[in-house]
This record gives sequence, C-alpha cells and structure tokens, in this order.
Amino acid sequence: MTTSYSLPHVEPLEQSLRADLQRIIDLKTKPPGSLGQLETLARQMGMIQRTTQPSITRPAMIVFAADHGIANAGVSPYPQAVTAQMVLNFLAGGAAINAFSRVAGLELEVVNAGVAHAFEPHERLVDIPLGKGTRNFAQEPAMTRDEALAAMRAGAERVRHHAALGTNVIGFGEMGIANTSSAACLMSRLCGVPIDDCVGRGTGLDNAGLVKKRNVLAAALAFHPASNDPLDVLATFGGFEIAMMAGAYLAAAQARMTIVVDGFIATSALLVADAFAPAVRDYCVFAHASNEAGHRRMLDYFGAVPLLALDLRLGEGTGAALAMPLLRAAVAFINEMASFESAGIAQRDA
Amino acid sequence: MTTSYSLPHVEPLEQSLRADLQRIIDLKTKPPGSLGQLETLARQMGMIQRTTQPSITRPAMIVFAADHGIANAGVSPYPQAVTAQMVLNFLAGGAAINAFSRVAGLELEVVNAGVAHAFEPHERLVDIPLGKGTRNFAQEPAMTRDEALAAMRAGAERVRHHAALGTNVIGFGEMGIANTSSAACLMSRLCGVPIDDCVGRGTGLDNAGLVKKRNVLAAALAFHPASNDPLDVLATFGGFEIAMMAGAYLAAAQARMTIVVDGFIATSALLVADAFAPAVRDYCVFAHASNEAGHRRMLDYFGAVPLLALDLRLGEGTGAALAMPLLRAAVAFINEMASFESAGIAQRDA
Repeated sequence: MTTSYSLPHVEPLEQSLRADLQRIIDLKTKPPGSLGQLETLARQMGMIQRTTQPSITRPAMIVFAADHGIANAGVSPYPQAVTAQMVLNFLAGGAAINAFSRVAGLELEVVNAGVAHAFEPHERLVDIPLGKGTRNFAQEPAMTRDEALAAMRAGAERVRHHAALGTNVIGFGEMGIANTSSAACLMSRLCGVPIDDCVGRGTGLDNAGLVKKRNVLAAALAFHPASNDPLDVLATFGGFEIAMMAGAYLAAAQARMTIVVDGFIATSALLVADAFAPAVRDYCVFAHASNEAGHRRMLDYFGAVPLLALDLRLGEGTGAALAMPLLRAAVAFINEMASFESAGIAQRDA
Repeated sequence: MTTSYSLPHVEPLEQSLRADLQRIIDLKTKPPGSLGQLETLARQMGMIQRTTQPSITRPAMIVFAADHGIANAGVSPYPQAVTAQMVLNFLAGGAAINAFSRVAGLELEVVNAGVAHAFEPHERLVDIPLGKGTRNFAQEPAMTRDEALAAMRAGAERVRHHAALGTNVIGFGEMGIANTSSAACLMSRLCGVPIDDCVGRGTGLDNAGLVKKRNVLAAALAFHPASNDPLDVLATFGGFEIAMMAGAYLAAAQARMTIVVDGFIATSALLVADAFAPAVRDYCVFAHASNEAGHRRMLDYFGAVPLLALDLRLGEGTGAALAMPLLRAAVAFINEMASFESAGIAQRDA
C-alpha cells in the first residue's frame, strides 16, 4: 500500500495471528462467541499490535478545529464564531469531549488546524493553523492542493508525537461550524452517492435550512469538475481539520495504533485517508452510528458494524470517547479471563 | 404502588424535576438533543436521585447463582455442574463479569441462591441457598410459593446491604445452567407471548437441541394451569436466582437506586418484579439488547431502548457492567459541562 505525496505508508493487517487469537478467545470460560463484538475487537487489537495479549497504553484523543468558508453560504444554524468559542471551551475543560475524555481516561489535545481566530498560548492547544478558515467552496476550491497536503502532513505529525509518548489507541474529533457540508460533499464524491443522501441537519437545521443546504451543496458539486484524485477532492471540498485528520489516520495506522472512528465528519476524513491507502481501515474500530443522515451509509461503505448507536450527533470525538471503555473491556477479557482448563470447568457436551 | 407479601414498596418516579433537568441539559454547550440517549439517562438519574446533580456512588454488581431441575430435561448443552464451577470461577476472579466489573469499577458480590454444591466460605460469596437447585418444572412446580417468596425477600435484603454502604447504582447478573428455559416460560406467561417466540439457543444449542427445548417447554406450560398470580408463575417456572433478583429489583427501586438491567434472564426477573410493582421500571436502565431470541421482544414489552447491542449472549451481568461507563458519562456531562452563558458561546440563530 504505497501512498503518494510522501504521506505515511500503511501496510494491510497481516492475518497470521488471527487463528491463535481466536483459539485463545474460544478457550475462555464462556460459550463460544457469546461476547459478540467484543471478541471481534479483541482479535483485531491483537492483530494490530501483533500479540495475543493486546493492551491499551496512553489512549489519546486529538480534536482538530477549523473554520469553513462555506459557513458564509448559510448552511449552519450557528454563527462561525462558535468554532473559536468552542475551542476555548475545550481548553477550559467545559465541553462534552472534556467530560467524556476524563471518564474514559484519555489524553486530550486540541489542534487549531485553521480557525478564524488568534488564540493565546495554552498547554492543551497545538496552534498550527493553515489559515483563518478555508475558502467558500460554493465559489472556489476550499484549499489549494498544497494546503490540503500540508494539513495532512501536519495531522500525521501530531500522531507521531503521541506515538513517541507511547499511545497505542487513538481517537480523533473535530470542531468546525459548517463542516457537515464539507463532509457531505466529500462523501458524495468519494462514495459516489447522490448529495441528497449525504446531507443531514448537522447541528440542528430546520426543514427550510435543510433544503437550502441541499441546494447550496448540489450547486457546489455541479460547479467543480468531477475528479477521482483524492487530493483534488479533499482540496476542493474539505476543511483544514478534515485534512489534518485524514493524515492523522494514515500515521496512526502506520504506527499500528487502534483507531477509534467517531461520527459523520470523522468518517468523512477516513474516506479521504482510505482513498489514499485503503489498508487504513484494517486499523479502525467504528465507535458509533451517528444520528446525522448519511453516516449509516458511510458505515455501510466500510462494511462497518459500529459499537454504539446512542443517537449522538455532536462530533468533537464524543462517540469515540464513549466507545473507549468497550476497548478496555475487550483487552480485559482476553488477558484476564480464565480458560476452561485453568478454571477446571466442564466444556459443552460433545 | 403497593406490593403484597411484605415485599418492598415501590413509588412511581415523580416528574417534578423533569423540566428543571431538561433545562439544564439544554443549556449545555452543545446543540439541543445532540447527546441522544445520554441526555435521557442523565434526566432519569436526576429524577431517581431527586437532584439536578446526579452522582454514582459505590456502584455494585450482584450475581445470583442457582441450579434448575429443568436441566435434567436436556435443555442446555452444558452439564449442570458448570453452575458451581462458574461460581468458583467468579470467586477466583476469572470470569467475564470479573474482568468487566474491574473495568467498570463495580463492587462485585456473588450470591449462592441455590446451587447444587456446598461452597467453602469466601469473602466475595454470600452463601444463602434456598436448596440444591429447583425441582424440574416439566414435572412439578420449580419452587413452592413460600420458597419463591423467601428468595425474593433474600434478594431484597442483599440490596439493602449495599444501600447501607452507599450504593446508588446497581446491576444484577445471574448464573444457572438451563435458566434460559425458566426465563422463556416466565416471559411466555407474564407477557402472553407464544413459547416459540420466547425460546432461544441459550448458551449455544444446535437446531435439534432448540427443537427439543421448545417441545419440553411447550409441554411444561401446557402441564401447569394458567395463572395470573405472579407468585404462582414465579414459583412454577422460576429459579432461586431469578426470584432473588426479582426481589432485588424491588428493593433497589425502593432505595431509589438506578438499576442497570442485563440480558434475557435478568429481564425475565424484571418481568416478575414488574408484575408485583410496575413502578419498578421507572428506576431501570436497559443495558443492552442480547443476542438471545426473545430479548428484543421483552425490551419492547417495557418500551425500552437499550444502550448497547453488541451481540452478547453470556449473562452474568456482563451487559450491565459494559453499560456502566455510559452512566458515568451521563453524570459527567450534566455536572461538568459548561453552559452557553458560562462559556460565552453564541447560541443558534433565532
């Protein structure tokens, strides 16, 4: 799996440990298969980590934030200033992702990927913006190809930072008013799905707002020539935070991390990463099915069975954080449970 | 809500705090409703605890174990001896519920409600059996009414023990070879559902075993006269662990605990408790939809939307333990998140 543009190289997951892991799981003191998706999870984590004793070390959450020129087209019920205000809320510890990261024991980092605001330095903020928001893709490409590529590389670099500190499980979140519009267009282009099936209410559009958003995005897609080149698609419709996250996925897979994929925006960034290196999906656990229209179809595109379906539609990485205890449970059962033999328990009748 | 037989008295949840809780939730820095089921959970826990700042204190898991005479009818692929062996596994810390209780930070107690085995004393074992397993309900009632009632009272007493220690969130698990047969018959009688829709593969019956189980249970239901008296139904088809759990539900609701309901067997015990005091369901959170046929229909009976659906079919309280971090997340967001006003964040366009 070569990726072009000097992006991280991602190897498909080798299958050699699969049988060993399955045998260990089947000898645990429980009916075979009775732990359902947790068994799949334990096996996948073992294969990613190349061990029959997978672990979770220094789990981390990186939230990428950026502004979007398309917000000027009236596709969100919230003003663009909310992106910066929410970043400050992340830094102050008052957002949902703060609360859930504390519950899940996650290291939380906030990255300014390109918010239309100048931030004061803060210990939890990585301030590496590529601009003060993207351009309005209703009128011109959101980014240049160089900007998109620089964002991907910067996202990859953040993951390498955490890898060096020992992180082997990671989730990515995002904040960016209007970024469901970017995600919907990326989905439409990369999955070949009609835009109407990709557009949802985002943070809470009413019916009139939803119609307007569909019209704006349909016009934008018609305006830009079709392209099969993922960098073109990303540059045209993406956001700085989405591009950084796409690069982060590639670096996390290269570092053999287990990647916990959040909702609609985060999965759109995975679509981009997947277009560069499809092997990235081998390293992904899909945290939840979001309530945003279109996310189920994205999950189907990946053949993914999400862990949770809690009617969430917040983003920030909240779904990924909420799924983290299930990874802990998967690791706990495969490492800590007794086998039938060690516990002296009769197996099922032959 | 009076309950007869000196069982715990359960008051319906008063609705007075609902609006206050909803207002607090809606002022948090997130789009209204965007935390989905976690918002429902936070509101319910606040109402149960009569506070706008719900908490989780000393969360506990009680696993009730017992043997079943119906096991002699060949309704399970595992020999009856596995019940005692698994209890010893719980005490040694090697079962799935041990691993998941550790991950979730739960106090774990194992209750011998009536296993066909004499246990040595153990610090984690509460050894209060009502017999060496129930009688075979294919031929006679599983218990006398007095036995069933004594079991319910004993289960209630265990919950009072934990209430006195400060527990305000509790889950119940079970172990008992053949207890899906008891649960299926309880469901059929208490919900008025044909037995074929209540019977599943349990720990892993093959097709022939499933047919046999259906036939055995259909014959047993035909053999015992129909009754609308929940104590009769429990005594006829129940198990000591199911009866204790039914009493435990009532005591937990009386103590205003949030009750995390596990899978098929645990929900069948809730059907019994509900038949005595329907208000008990106000205190229940449904942890997961089990893979055991019939459980979805039980959940529908309660109008329940389960938190998880992970294809689990193990019992032991594992689903309840896995859901516990979601309760922690609900409590965390309502207590710790900033409001729009306190964070200085613009609300949506009017």
